[in-house]
Amino acid sequence: MADQAPSVRKRTGAKSSRGHVDFRGRLLRAVESLLEGGTSYSDLGIGQIVEAAGTSRSTFYLHFRDKSQLLEECLRAVMDDLLRVAGLTWQLPHDSDRAAVGGAMGDVVSAFATHARLMATVADVAGVDGRVGSALADLMDQGRRNLADHIRIGQQVGSVNAGIDASSTAGLLVAMAERGLIRLTPGADPVALAVIADSMTHIVWSSLYEGAACRG
Amino acid sequence: MADQAPSVRKRTGAKSSRGHVDFRGRLLRAVESLLEGGTSYSDLGIGQIVEAAGTSRSTFYLHFRDKSQLLEECLRAVMDDLLRVAGLTWQLPHDSDRAAVGGAMGDVVSAFATHARLMATVADVAGVDGRVGSALADLMDQGRRNLADHIRIGQQVGSVNAGIDASSTAGLLVAMAERGLIRLTPGADPVALAVIADSMTHIVWSSLYEGAACRG
Repeated sequence: MADQAPSVRKRTGAKSSRGHVDFRGRLLRAVESLLEGGTSYSDLGIGQIVEAAGTSRSTFYLHFRDKSQLLEECLRAVMDDLLRVAGLTWQLPHDSDRAAVGGAMGDVVSAFATHARLMATVADVAGVDGRVGSALADLMDQGRRNLADHIRIGQQVGSVNAGIDASSTAGLLVAMAERGLIRLTPGADPVALAVIADSMTHIVWSSLYEGAACRG
Repeated sequence: MADQAPSVRKRTGAKSSRGHVDFRGRLLRAVESLLEGGTSYSDLGIGQIVEAAGTSRSTFYLHFRDKSQLLEECLRAVMDDLLRVAGLTWQLPHDSDRAAVGGAMGDVVSAFATHARLMATVADVAGVDGRVGSALADLMDQGRRNLADHIRIGQQVGSVNAGIDASSTAGLLVAMAERGLIRLTPGADPVALAVIADSMTHIVWSSLYEGAACRG
C-alpha cells in the first residue's frame, strides 16, 4: 500500500482524499451487493463493479490500480469499523458484568454479519493475494495485541483470571472470532446471530472473567 | 475427488491401492520438507516434488492428475490423523478431569504442529482451489459435528454446562483450533506449543466443563 499511496494522491490531489474515501465507499457497497447476489470474487469484473456503483472505468483507474487494491482498501475500511466495535468489548470497564460483555459481543457479531460475504471473500483471497493477506494479518495482529493488553491489565486489577497466558489466549480467541464468524454468519438470520453472540459471550466470559477475583 | 478415483484405480489396479497410499506418503513427506525449507506452494513444481521424493514425473502422473489433487489427498491424510487425535479429546470419559483434557489437547497441538506448514498452505489455497476448499470444509464440519455430539451427550449426563448451544459453541471452538493453530504453531518451539495447548485447554475446560453438574 505505502508505495502506491503517493502516486494515487498525486493524481487525485490532496483535496480529493475525502473524495477518495467517498468513492471507495460507493465501490465497497457495489462489491458487497454483487457478492451478496452470488457473484464470486474471481468472476467479478471491473466493468460490473463500476456499473453497479454508477461510475466509469476511467474514474475507477484514477483511484485504484486494480481489483486487488480495491479489495484491500475495502477490507481496511471494514476492518477499521470491526476493530472499533470490537474495541468496545475490551474497553469495557473492568467491573462490567456478563450482560455488558454480551451486549458488546452482540455488536461485534452484528457488525461482522453486515460484511459477512466481503469478509469471507477476503479470507478466500488472503492466502494467494499478498497485499490482502498482509492487510488481514496486520489487522488480526492488532486485534490480538489489543485483547492481550486488555487481559494483562485485567489480570493486574483482578478482573481477568490470573493464571492464563495473555498472548496465546488472545491469539486463540481472535482466531475463534475471525474464522468462526466467517464460517457461521453468512446466511444466518437475526435469531441465529443472537445464538452465535451468546455462545461467543459464554466462551469469552468463562475463559477470561468468570472466577476472577472481583467478578461473580 | 469422486469422479477421479475410478480412473486412478483402473490405471493403478486394485492391488496397488496400498501402493498408492505408500506413494502418497512419500510425496507428502517431500512436499512438507520443501515447504519447511521455505519454498512457497505456488513456486513448488512437480519436478521438485518428484526429485525430493526420489521418483519420476511419469510415476507421479500415474497416481495424480496434478499438484492440486496431490495437495487435496495430502490434506485428507493429515486431517484423518488430526481428527483421530482430536477424537481422543471428545471420546474422553465424561468424568475426565482437567489434566486428562489437557493431555488430549497437548496431543492435538503436537499433531497439528507436525504438519503446521502443510496446514498453513492448505488454508492459503482453500479459498481459491475448490477441491482443497471443499476437503477442508468437509473435515472441519466433521470436527464440528463430532464436538457438538460430545457437548449434547455431556449435557445429558451432566458433564457439560447445560445452558450452552451445542452447534454454535462447537463451531466456534473448532474455528478457534483451525485458525488459531495455523496462526500460532508455525515456528513455535516445544515450550511455546505447551503454552498454546494450556491456553486451549483453559478455554475449552472453562467454557464446556467447569461448573457443570458432575465436575469440580
